[in-house]
Amino acid sequence: MRDEKAKPKDLLIETASRLFKLRGYCGVGLNDIIAESGVPKGSLYHYFPQGKEQLAVAAIDYTKHLVMDDIQRVFASFATPVDALQAYVYELSKVFGEGGDPLGSPIGTIAGETHTTSKPIRLACDATFKSWQAIYAEKFLAAGYSEQESARLAITFHALTEGGILLALTSKSGKPLAAIAEQVPSLLAKH
Amino acid sequence: MRDEKAKPKDLLIETASRLFKLRGYCGVGLNDIIAESGVPKGSLYHYFPQGKEQLAVAAIDYTKHLVMDDIQRVFASFATPVDALQAYVYELSKVFGEGGDPLGSPIGTIAGETHTTSKPIRLACDATFKSWQAIYAEKFLAAGYSEQESARLAITFHALTEGGILLALTSKSGKPLAAIAEQVPSLLAKH
Repeated sequence: MRDEKAKPKDLLIETASRLFKLRGYCGVGLNDIIAESGVPKGSLYHYFPQGKEQLAVAAIDYTKHLVMDDIQRVFASFATPVDALQAYVYELSKVFGEGGDPLGSPIGTIAGETHTTSKPIRLACDATFKSWQAIYAEKFLAAGYSEQESARLAITFHALTEGGILLALTSKSGKPLAAIAEQVPSLLAKH
Repeated sequence: MRDEKAKPKDLLIETASRLFKLRGYCGVGLNDIIAESGVPKGSLYHYFPQGKEQLAVAAIDYTKHLVMDDIQRVFASFATPVDALQAYVYELSKVFGEGGDPLGSPIGTIAGETHTTSKPIRLACDATFKSWQAIYAEKFLAAGYSEQESARLAITFHALTEGGILLALTSKSGKPLAAIAEQVPSLLAKH
């Protein structure tokens, strides 16, 4: 069995993901990633010849799958969209709450920083957001919502998590996300 | 009458606000602000002796009032929270839509970038978010919602705008915000 963690390419991607979450794209230099990962500069340029932007796209793709797994795990445990969404937002409120040391928005900050400056990063962020929304939409569809309303609700609830995470980080508190979670049943009460 | 626009301090704050929205906090240097505003470096340090961080706090406060005025203007034109919120999110969908050249999130990116690195900026962002939420909460209170539900709904709908703006910037399209606006009546349908 290979130890996946020990592969320098994976180490670089994991380290870059963590640092970008913590300080944003611009606030992290390749030297920080080299120092934190312990992977030599030569290896970094071997795996990512185009440098930081290429590594960022790989880090976004890595984060995309981590978050997809998280959403799918929670959604698989709850039959209805309202229960699934409430449970997921409660979970976010704990991750970003007082007790822990939240890293930052999975990719929200990097998306906000680079939307005018890097098309490859913007497109990677856009694809990531759409992957997450597809899981939300599937949950609504399975519960009998129309295709159009499922798509709209997916965008709405994904936006709610992005905004809620931002409020949690800014207030250093899980309370905004907990307030949103408590509101979820009423937001879907019509149905 | 004084021409407020011509005051170097105001020019610095306006220029900094615009550049931070466009490229984030880290992506903008004091030299960029000096070059764009035409205000000499000596004046910048006269008004903001602590430099970029102090100027950022002033820029956030300036943006706080601009957005408060926007929300209040739209909210004053619509009697019910559902109509007011729907109109406001539709307006955002136009501002951040295909046609224009959106600057970026009013302060969302700067909040996401600096939450671990600058307490003064984080606290300025937090105060700004709470000012906006207070206007939302007032609208819900005036419509007869309980104090607790008004506070929760204010956080929920503010988070929705922050997330929606992020999705609009990332997809370079007003569609995510338009989808959210179309969903607003159903989100508040219980009431």
